[in-house]
Amino acid sequence: MASIKAKSFKLALIQLGSLNSSKSNNIQIAKKAISKAISSFSKDEENKPNLIVLPEIWNSPYAVNSFREYSEKIPKIGSKIGQLNENEEGETVKAMREMARDNKIWLIGGSIPQKDEKTDEIFNTCTVYDPEGTLVAIHQKVHLFDIDIPGRQTFKESDTLTGGKSLTTFDTPFGKIGLGICYDIRFPEMATIAARQGCVAMIYPAAFNTTTGPMHWTLLQRARAVDNQIYVAMCSPARHPEASYQAYGHSSVVNPLGDILVEASHEPTTIYADIDVDLLNTTRRNLPVTIQRRFDVYPDVAEKFL
Amino acid sequence: MASIKAKSFKLALIQLGSLNSSKSNNIQIAKKAISKAISSFSKDEENKPNLIVLPEIWNSPYAVNSFREYSEKIPKIGSKIGQLNENEEGETVKAMREMARDNKIWLIGGSIPQKDEKTDEIFNTCTVYDPEGTLVAIHQKVHLFDIDIPGRQTFKESDTLTGGKSLTTFDTPFGKIGLGICYDIRFPEMATIAARQGCVAMIYPAAFNTTTGPMHWTLLQRARAVDNQIYVAMCSPARHPEASYQAYGHSSVVNPLGDILVEASHEPTTIYADIDVDLLNTTRRNLPVTIQRRFDVYPDVAEKFL
Repeated sequence: MASIKAKSFKLALIQLGSLNSSKSNNIQIAKKAISKAISSFSKDEENKPNLIVLPEIWNSPYAVNSFREYSEKIPKIGSKIGQLNENEEGETVKAMREMARDNKIWLIGGSIPQKDEKTDEIFNTCTVYDPEGTLVAIHQKVHLFDIDIPGRQTFKESDTLTGGKSLTTFDTPFGKIGLGICYDIRFPEMATIAARQGCVAMIYPAAFNTTTGPMHWTLLQRARAVDNQIYVAMCSPARHPEASYQAYGHSSVVNPLGDILVEASHEPTTIYADIDVDLLNTTRRNLPVTIQRRFDVYPDVAEKFL
Repeated sequence: MASIKAKSFKLALIQLGSLNSSKSNNIQIAKKAISKAISSFSKDEENKPNLIVLPEIWNSPYAVNSFREYSEKIPKIGSKIGQLNENEEGETVKAMREMARDNKIWLIGGSIPQKDEKTDEIFNTCTVYDPEGTLVAIHQKVHLFDIDIPGRQTFKESDTLTGGKSLTTFDTPFGKIGLGICYDIRFPEMATIAARQGCVAMIYPAAFNTTTGPMHWTLLQRARAVDNQIYVAMCSPARHPEASYQAYGHSSVVNPLGDILVEASHEPTTIYADIDVDLLNTTRRNLPVTIQRRFDVYPDVAEKFL
């Protein structure tokens, strides 16, 4: 598992701003931001991003009492654009399929509240689309954000959400990618397993806040990157003075050496990074931790996933 | 496992300087540094350190071709001061027993090269003494430092050393402590297992260098601390202009929030930190990751150690 077979590619993280309580407004904002990011490469096709990432819960307010109202039905993996009617998939999914197809990109659609019609449960769910608009992966946030730092930050997703039950990776022509959502990054097992499955990057749509962001946002990304010698990215919404929950912003990409390649401020913006597979493999050759692990002394947490 | 039963205590890390190729010189330096650290509290007994830590390979040059020459026999756990003759334990072990007893402290004796007389193998070994000078724990470095960053840092401990085969914790009246040595910190499983076994701190005698130190020394400590919500300390030798291997220095202690409580420069010094069990337990209550792990989704790497 020392070296990874993948191709270098370009990643774009869209730190959406001006999101409000109108779902259709938020969809238009995402659509425009992606078009703008892609059209800026119209004379430079070679450097066009291959993979675009949206932030966590971007079509709805990030609030426990909004998730159910904004939730949508998410269809099955493999479902194609134009195949399903409006009773079978929500408007945000439909719009994300078009964003991927119209811009000929892979799209990690951040996350949106998902309603499971069978169980009536609500999930915080990331969907991924290929450049034809086909739904290729679904990750339901596994670790719900229930924290209580008195006087600073209290939130309890489990009041209305259910945690997912699976780990998620997906394959692209440029390599395997692992997914997590926000608080999932505090649980190292997810990135460890994804990396040992051969992922070149672990990508987290996220929305830390102004308390936990300065404490741990950068540290957690760098830790996952260095421990697993992979790329790690987190994509946040921009800060919004009127929102009840103040997102940290600071969308960023960290390389396998732990260097921050690019980091946004808290304003709306799009940031870009080259995912360099040669650098990843050189790092693994120079600091060969991926072949020095002592699974004779402690278990391999990824064993049953390989 | 949310909260830990332990008492707050004071830790001192001795960043030894002026070490050279004379083992007896190095023992005298360690002895004096410990006496000095303790005697400075002679009018303030309440704040005297409870646990003192020495750096990695402090009685020998840190060089592959020195380890065998400087290696010593290390007796069994439970062996007491004055019980064994010079054929049964090395002079460095004997001296460390006296340092612990004479100063009435718990001593993590950094590490020294250990010779296993049965197998003729050499280990990089940490020994721990209680305030009576009794040997209470032995940790053999599990992950050998074999790296090759061309033109910057190449080292291959496995040329002359053998890796240990066990994880190590030990109990004190102020709580359970986990041990690793230097490169062991790059392998998160050790700290994860120690924390889930109830350790309040993970302590690593270490000697990063001027290449890997600036890259990862602080990051790795903060990552182990935040992911496991424990204290983490690394104790390095001071830098030595004439040595073939330039230690990074920067001995430091990080709290369960990931804050660096104290960090040395690269000069000889002793640094102190209060290990605050209330802070540890408050952190675990506010950010309750220790009870939010999803072992229904991925295995608990510590399960067989609990």
